[in-house]
Amino acid sequence: MMLDKSNFLTPSLKGAGQVFFMENALTGLFFLIAIGFASYATGVWATTIGAVLGLIIATVTARALEYDEASVQAGLFGFNGILVGIALPTFIAASPFLWLYIVIGAAVSTIVTASFAATLTKSWGIPGSTGPFVLTTWLLLAGAYSFGSLQVTGNAPKLASDYVQGTASIPAVMELLDIFFRNIGQVFLLGDTISGVIILVGIFIASRPAGIAAMAGSAIALVMAIVMRADPATVSQGLYGFSPVLTAMAVGVIFMKTSTKVVLYAGIATVMTVFVQGALDVIMAPSGLPSFTAPYVLTMYLFIAPKKLLSPHPHKPVAHHATADKKTS
Amino acid sequence: MMLDKSNFLTPSLKGAGQVFFMENALTGLFFLIAIGFASYATGVWATTIGAVLGLIIATVTARALEYDEASVQAGLFGFNGILVGIALPTFIAASPFLWLYIVIGAAVSTIVTASFAATLTKSWGIPGSTGPFVLTTWLLLAGAYSFGSLQVTGNAPKLASDYVQGTASIPAVMELLDIFFRNIGQVFLLGDTISGVIILVGIFIASRPAGIAAMAGSAIALVMAIVMRADPATVSQGLYGFSPVLTAMAVGVIFMKTSTKVVLYAGIATVMTVFVQGALDVIMAPSGLPSFTAPYVLTMYLFIAPKKLLSPHPHKPVAHHATADKKTS
Amino acid sequence: MMLDKSNFLTPSLKGAGQVFFMENALTGLFFLIAIGFASYATGVWATTIGAVLGLIIATVTARALEYDEASVQAGLFGFNGILVGIALPTFIAASPFLWLYIVIGAAVSTIVTASFAATLTKSWGIPGSTGPFVLTTWLLLAGAYSFGSLQVTGNAPKLASDYVQGTASIPAVMELLDIFFRNIGQVFLLGDTISGVIILVGIFIASRPAGIAAMAGSAIALVMAIVMRADPATVSQGLYGFSPVLTAMAVGVIFMKTSTKVVLYAGIATVMTVFVQGALDVIMAPSGLPSFTAPYVLTMYLFIAPKKLLSPHPHKPVAHHATADKKTS
Repeated sequence: MMLDKSNFLTPSLKGAGQVFFMENALTGLFFLIAIGFASYATGVWATTIGAVLGLIIATVTARALEYDEASVQAGLFGFNGILVGIALPTFIAASPFLWLYIVIGAAVSTIVTASFAATLTKSWGIPGSTGPFVLTTWLLLAGAYSFGSLQVTGNAPKLASDYVQGTASIPAVMELLDIFFRNIGQVFLLGDTISGVIILVGIFIASRPAGIAAMAGSAIALVMAIVMRADPATVSQGLYGFSPVLTAMAVGVIFMKTSTKVVLYAGIATVMTVFVQGALDVIMAPSGLPSFTAPYVLTMYLFIAPKKLLSPHPHKPVAHHATADKKTS
Repeated sequence: MMLDKSNFLTPSLKGAGQVFFMENALTGLFFLIAIGFASYATGVWATTIGAVLGLIIATVTARALEYDEASVQAGLFGFNGILVGIALPTFIAASPFLWLYIVIGAAVSTIVTASFAATLTKSWGIPGSTGPFVLTTWLLLAGAYSFGSLQVTGNAPKLASDYVQGTASIPAVMELLDIFFRNIGQVFLLGDTISGVIILVGIFIASRPAGIAAMAGSAIALVMAIVMRADPATVSQGLYGFSPVLTAMAVGVIFMKTSTKVVLYAGIATVMTVFVQGALDVIMAPSGLPSFTAPYVLTMYLFIAPKKLLSPHPHKPVAHHATADKKTS
Repeated sequence: MMLDKSNFLTPSLKGAGQVFFMENALTGLFFLIAIGFASYATGVWATTIGAVLGLIIATVTARALEYDEASVQAGLFGFNGILVGIALPTFIAASPFLWLYIVIGAAVSTIVTASFAATLTKSWGIPGSTGPFVLTTWLLLAGAYSFGSLQVTGNAPKLASDYVQGTASIPAVMELLDIFFRNIGQVFLLGDTISGVIILVGIFIASRPAGIAAMAGSAIALVMAIVMRADPATVSQGLYGFSPVLTAMAVGVIFMKTSTKVVLYAGIATVMTVFVQGALDVIMAPSGLPSFTAPYVLTMYLFIAPKKLLSPHPHKPVAHHATADKKTS
């Protein structure tokens, strides 16, 4: 492998950008800055190191396995790897075994991405999206409970009956703004408001409709979570918003051609994602696993599978995200 | 949308009928009467209101999304919606948020129905049947635990080890007859004996073989549940019988051409459904979710997937249930 | 059915052999001897009787349903049945109902095998392998908790938080050798060292590369389990090794054409299987179900799905395992 700019740096940066469906190196750079800023703010750098490591290993693995070069160039094998790399240090204490875990996990995320492409995408046109990240990280994090060499922090398994239902307290306006941006930052597992702002700017650099959809998704999630009286502490961290943000973008702009009907369709999908977030929090509780972006992945799969019925049309600037998996199969 | 008889009332009534695979408006009317009678007997009308609301919303959604008109006419987008509408009020206390939940849930059930059609049915000829109802209602009910605006009644999450195994007590003959009909009524989540009788009459109106299969399924389930010593309280409510009733009909009459071999095949499927009922009760326990018709759905999928091997032939009068999903994709 | 040698005994013995992908009657005989020896050593014969019963019923069912004769001859409908027959008596106390359970379970395993062939294999070229055994046995064992007629021994449902992480104690060399062979024996749920030796000899009789892959899988699993500090009691029983043994064989030799690249690929798959073993132990805990060969099945599916990308080539002597499912659909 030649590690020159066009062969390696650009695909990696685009891989970061593809977490929000943006095949844009500058956008990816903004996202990496957002991740770094959150580390700077908290003093915990393992997440940033893990993100970069996961991104590189995932991209290198795709090259080593000679997966479709156009997809690699578009960053389509990097975005699951960066998420594995940022998620594992968020829930497992730093140690040499954690880094081993991230290296293997990021490599496996690339293989699972190819696996989803060869099945879901090939047969049904359903994009794998961050599904491979969710599956790979669930398995690795659940495994970590079994291994003395890895220490899981927080999130102990519990019964759903222990789950605290929300009280009626509605956050103050300033906090609403914070949550609005945290909803975006949490896609990268970042609870930092500024990081959310940087990410949103990065999205707008690549696509205005995508940026508007992200904002709409965050706003809808915020309103629904408060109306349904979800646990305020969870809402406040932005944990009810990041999946709806992705759903709003994916269904409203990225994988379907935007129209009045599609906007309504994406609106229902976004509201449903909030409900599925509540559902998976309960369903996953006994396993001691966070739901990650599974509420988005599940809802998006269900809403995109019958998309031919609505004569969709992939979004031009990021068409690769919708179609590249086909190229890999 | 024009809400005249041919365009709206008939498809809706057929939608009710399709819960038992019957594309017959009169049968559907009988089913609605059975649901109403159970509400009259218990004084709880939320289930009947929910059923009608779910049926209408699901059908309207299919029209709004311009799904295959022949399938809409046949009621194939209504039967999951009516089940969502009757199941949610059974487990969630009535409130404005419940009705919002049913509206969104019924709309989503139509999209999930199209999703199953575009995947399972398109690729493998497996009918989605009530799978979309099960998935949608699981997600909504699990979500309800997370939301203070919705109050889940009963069915708290527990460990399977808390599950009570059955004692040997065999019910008296009169109670056996009650259970026989409750096994049929519980397909609509109705514990009422008379409702079961009305439903069975409704099935016979549309198809004698289907009615016989329903009776056979109920009887087999009753015998197996007692022989295996399942929890008597659960057996008595008809909760061990409704999935086997559907399996016996689906595998023995609806989705395969009835023959001696197919009857034996359906018999094994029906017995297996009783075992899967016991299994899912245990597996779902930690989530605090009922298994709904999942034992039927899972067993039927597994037994129908290789049906080409047995040269099946869809049942004429209700062929649409077997084939219409294809039209929607 | 004529029960002469070519029609019945040979397919059955090959069915036993196919558990390790070997279409070889002598190998199958060795495996049956290994199972019998373990019964002799422990004095518990229910597992051996169950194995033979499951093998026969599964094969007879395939004949009765007129499934593809070449696949039946190759033993491809027997290997899930023998595993159902050996697994159920391992976790359920012997009783007339257990034998009924095994008969129905083995028959259903054949139908589920056809079901996986008609879906996973037909659409995506993914071999069902022991997936049908895992699914069927999970359902039956979970069901057993619900039925007073069946008594589940050990393995009560628990929360993952009760799971004991491993200490650092590294087993002595002699015990390492024991574990090395138990890792192989546990594919048949046998904790006996001698049984593991007999099985390994049986594999070498049919294929030297397969035997070497089995040894490599066992060694890798042993090293990883110790390095990751998995629970020593579990490691010692060989429970961290049997799935990796199958993964190493399946990915390295059976379903892909062996090469330097494929050996590396299989190595990553084998290591990942150890992690997935740890994961599923935690995830399955609340259900009170063992993970059986699910860690192998899941990992193999994910690694084989995109196999076209690596231009694979089925292993000659056991090509039927890779391709026969296609014939059944």
